[in-house]
Amino acid sequence: MTQSENKTALVVIDVQQGLDNPHFGRRNNPHAEKNIALLLSRWRSAEWPVVHVHHHSSSVASPLHPTHAGVAVKPEAQPLPTEPCFIKSVNSAFIGTGLEAWLTERSMNNLVVVGLTAEHCVSTSVRMAANLGFQVTLVADATASHDKQDINGESISAEAVFRVNVASLADEFCTVCVTQDLLD
Amino acid sequence: MTQSENKTALVVIDVQQGLDNPHFGRRNNPHAEKNIALLLSRWRSAEWPVVHVHHHSSSVASPLHPTHAGVAVKPEAQPLPTEPCFIKSVNSAFIGTGLEAWLTERSMNNLVVVGLTAEHCVSTSVRMAANLGFQVTLVADATASHDKQDINGESISAEAVFRVNVASLADEFCTVCVTQDLLD
Repeated sequence: MTQSENKTALVVIDVQQGLDNPHFGRRNNPHAEKNIALLLSRWRSAEWPVVHVHHHSSSVASPLHPTHAGVAVKPEAQPLPTEPCFIKSVNSAFIGTGLEAWLTERSMNNLVVVGLTAEHCVSTSVRMAANLGFQVTLVADATASHDKQDINGESISAEAVFRVNVASLADEFCTVCVTQDLLD
Repeated sequence: MTQSENKTALVVIDVQQGLDNPHFGRRNNPHAEKNIALLLSRWRSAEWPVVHVHHHSSSVASPLHPTHAGVAVKPEAQPLPTEPCFIKSVNSAFIGTGLEAWLTERSMNNLVVVGLTAEHCVSTSVRMAANLGFQVTLVADATASHDKQDINGESISAEAVFRVNVASLADEFCTVCVTQDLLD
């Protein structure tokens, strides 16, 4: 299919250096970035639409504040000059950005979502996309989570955070697949 | 404080009969409704603002379709005639409703959120409220989760779904407390 035939946009969220800051804790799915690169390559070779979303925190204490090196996009997800980038300052890719209008104007109702992190910006963006009427596919092994603490201060592993967050999205907000499903 | 002094709105989400349908699986926090009733009583006796959000599914197969008995609000969360109710058809209380405008017009920037379910409509509404600029407090023991399956078809207990969903919201989107903290 050419771009005019496939309107499914690959939406790449927050694949930025600052999310490796130790402040965020240990992460699962170390191959997420490699998978994102594979998907980007597939989309680009077919001339299907690619959209990038980058986080610029409004808090100077955040590694993703635009004055910090952490705001930089990782090599695996560098946008091409022809690909639109939407800058957000909250978790949802659809609040304070032109993303919804950009997709709607192009009749792009189907989204494949990848990026970081599963529990924060990816989950929030998938939820809102679905509630706005988009058909969403989440690529589980092209996203990842960090360790968390529960409300009693007990540690929850990144794997458990990831597992529950993806399960909480599945069926209710999106279809869940893995990278290889989309490459085949 | 009187209502004019306390602008913190108690937002009660989807406390509806249909969420007890066996279709949704086993639930944790059986005392969530009792806690919601306690908070409603506290807010009403102080004349603080209360807002209800009810789900009317657009799918006739859902127990929460408006033609089904399950759409009914549980006794513990019946609105008073003076309290506004916003009807939604997606997970977010802020999409397709007048809730954001109603709160903003009244300068109600602080929300205390309770209701069902932690992983679906409560999580989505808390995330979007925070991203829209509201200060949100989630009352953990006044919400609850259902069992889920992970992407491999393995069961995840309602307790684990709840624990991770609340931990994924905490600090990033809201402050988390328990009912007694607000009653004291």
